[in-house]
Amino acid sequence: MGKPIAVSPLSRPLPDLSTVAGVRLSAVAAGVRYQGRTDLMLAEFAPGTVVAGVYTRNACPGAPILWCRQAQTTPYARALLVNAGNANVFTGRAGIQACEDCADAVSAMFDCPPQDVFLASTGVIGEKLPQQRIIDALPAAQAGLDENNWEQAARAIMTTDTFPKAARRDVTINGTPVRLQGIAKGSGMVAPDMATMLAYVATDAKIPQNILQSLLSAGCAKSFNAITVDSDTSTSDMLVLFATGLADNEPVTGPHDPALAEFTEALNDLLLELAILVVRDGEGATKQIRVDVTGADSDVSAHRIALSIANSPLVKTAIAGEDANWGRVVMAVGKSGEPADRDRLSVAMGGTWIAREGGVVENYDEAPVVAHMKGQDIEITVDLGLGDGQARVWTCDLTHGYIDINGSYRS
Amino acid sequence: MGKPIAVSPLSRPLPDLSTVAGVRLSAVAAGVRYQGRTDLMLAEFAPGTVVAGVYTRNACPGAPILWCRQAQTTPYARALLVNAGNANVFTGRAGIQACEDCADAVSAMFDCPPQDVFLASTGVIGEKLPQQRIIDALPAAQAGLDENNWEQAARAIMTTDTFPKAARRDVTINGTPVRLQGIAKGSGMVAPDMATMLAYVATDAKIPQNILQSLLSAGCAKSFNAITVDSDTSTSDMLVLFATGLADNEPVTGPHDPALAEFTEALNDLLLELAILVVRDGEGATKQIRVDVTGADSDVSAHRIALSIANSPLVKTAIAGEDANWGRVVMAVGKSGEPADRDRLSVAMGGTWIAREGGVVENYDEAPVVAHMKGQDIEITVDLGLGDGQARVWTCDLTHGYIDINGSYRS
Repeated sequence: MGKPIAVSPLSRPLPDLSTVAGVRLSAVAAGVRYQGRTDLMLAEFAPGTVVAGVYTRNACPGAPILWCRQAQTTPYARALLVNAGNANVFTGRAGIQACEDCADAVSAMFDCPPQDVFLASTGVIGEKLPQQRIIDALPAAQAGLDENNWEQAARAIMTTDTFPKAARRDVTINGTPVRLQGIAKGSGMVAPDMATMLAYVATDAKIPQNILQSLLSAGCAKSFNAITVDSDTSTSDMLVLFATGLADNEPVTGPHDPALAEFTEALNDLLLELAILVVRDGEGATKQIRVDVTGADSDVSAHRIALSIANSPLVKTAIAGEDANWGRVVMAVGKSGEPADRDRLSVAMGGTWIAREGGVVENYDEAPVVAHMKGQDIEITVDLGLGDGQARVWTCDLTHGYIDINGSYRS
Repeated sequence: MGKPIAVSPLSRPLPDLSTVAGVRLSAVAAGVRYQGRTDLMLAEFAPGTVVAGVYTRNACPGAPILWCRQAQTTPYARALLVNAGNANVFTGRAGIQACEDCADAVSAMFDCPPQDVFLASTGVIGEKLPQQRIIDALPAAQAGLDENNWEQAARAIMTTDTFPKAARRDVTINGTPVRLQGIAKGSGMVAPDMATMLAYVATDAKIPQNILQSLLSAGCAKSFNAITVDSDTSTSDMLVLFATGLADNEPVTGPHDPALAEFTEALNDLLLELAILVVRDGEGATKQIRVDVTGADSDVSAHRIALSIANSPLVKTAIAGEDANWGRVVMAVGKSGEPADRDRLSVAMGGTWIAREGGVVENYDEAPVVAHMKGQDIEITVDLGLGDGQARVWTCDLTHGYIDINGSYRS
């Protein structure tokens, strides 16, 4: 699998994890591809758990994505099974069969319909999934189910990740305490090999499925859909939210019910924390980059411009070189295809305006900019001077480490 | 300017260059930014020379682009002045003034209207162009004008280029011999600092301006608009074609006049040769990559899919690692947003089909693929299995060299 990869300099320790009522997890070594580590994660959800999901927009998705989209047509989930090492993508009819076999085995274990079983696979693509190894490991996985196994689950789904990723929030709905806790994996935004982005969040809150889906879709837009490592989009990305309802809070009436305000804020915050952890484990990343665009024609336009900047190899390599190269930012704005007027454009790095309304700011103070560029958290702000549209996205720099990881991955 | 950059392993020697009747060139050291090398190129065209141009689509173009677009509103050109080291981009009113000053000085020298003077600047952006240094160097440039200075001109416009680029074709129009000869610079497709793509082609053919423009626009679509190094688009890109008319061939009636068939083919061929030279000098490039897409919904769709593949960092790093990672090609097709059906998709590398109609070709012969990936010229073919749309684009691999060049460029 190539040389071992050092832990990202931007890694963060796991937070203090707890349990979520109605959720039990386990992690076992099924030997799908890796040896000497866990590679299979099983989660069991209490009967009545509802589920919301957001899946990759890649037009060539893997078999597990097709499976989950179909499973998503009913509101319930009883189990989640994720393997690392093989993505079960571009595997034709055999890939579908592998999903059916796994879901059948899990549904028999939990005495539930197969469509209440959610599946994911992450790893190499184009190789048939050895589903029998997974099915053979299921009894051990079932025996190991425990409320406290969140960290083990986070580790079992890692591929090129250099650190496990999890987040937790405790809030209330109408005075009833509820918890949100989630795990994620991914280190290229979302590349097809080992770098697929998977995120699973559970809560004990009691929220109808349609409301849960609204909250998740809205939260995803400002978190997982606002990060990019290399502009590549995996065939297997998914973000799934399970609500067991065991907190037994009072019923909520809709996504904008004031009783959900605190929960929604915590969900959005948790999703953003998980998404940023993926960026911070970006392949070869040495710096996290936040791009703010204001004054654009619309929010959609601002988002496209922000992604054009965040995906520009020239911007990303400049930041790796600690160079406040605002000229490349201007280029990236210009190439986005969105409305822009060179003579109204302003660019700041680390809060210092370097260019204002079409020209460099004469004699701007370089010292804070130089100091900012040497740090790990880089902030780029662009004001278009056109309207009220704004957006914020996150990415990481582009370094030799990215080439190392991706130029020799399968060797 | 950072460490010296080794000559690209994909470099090609200059072809046997000749003269073009009605064109004289010179190269001098104006000291715009570089020391100890020529950095200013002047070309003089015979009175009556007509000109066609294609300019960057970047929404934040440099002042010289604005100047040339305006100059393009009349059919004639008498001179071309190009400096390296400073791009005169994002320089506000001062940038426009610099263009006016330079054009006025050249127009006085040649006793022509300022709008018959074409200008280009390539180099760092956001710094004011020291136009007086250029104007001071003009007498020496004028004194040095000579029909034989094509190589000198090609060298004077280089920035991060590691080798000079030129091409030549000799053909006939209705039996009259005519010549096409051109030079280019560029080594990132077309990045905002030193890597802007500039190309200038001259011919002695007598072709009306509107026909010349049709031929150039069509030829550009299949050459300079079909290459990419890093998906970034310069604020200064331009391709300009000058026709002196001194060959005095019989009049032509339109772009599809059969008398122009040979000329058009030679022009297209020459433009492609120059464009591929830019790819072969791609920053850090060690391999040239040709991407063919067939069976797409339309030619436009095929072109977008081919660019999605050619711009994918994961595809480009895999090829740098000599890995026939067709899974990443599938991912890049899927993320393009264009119609695709995973179960009809086929992928070949070096002419060997690795995946067919949605699955890996069992027991395909790996030996020729492995040998192909070790070469310098990589061919990827994707068949969508949907329709008749096809496209071909060129790019290069993504290596540590790209990071070296772009991560420390201004330091």
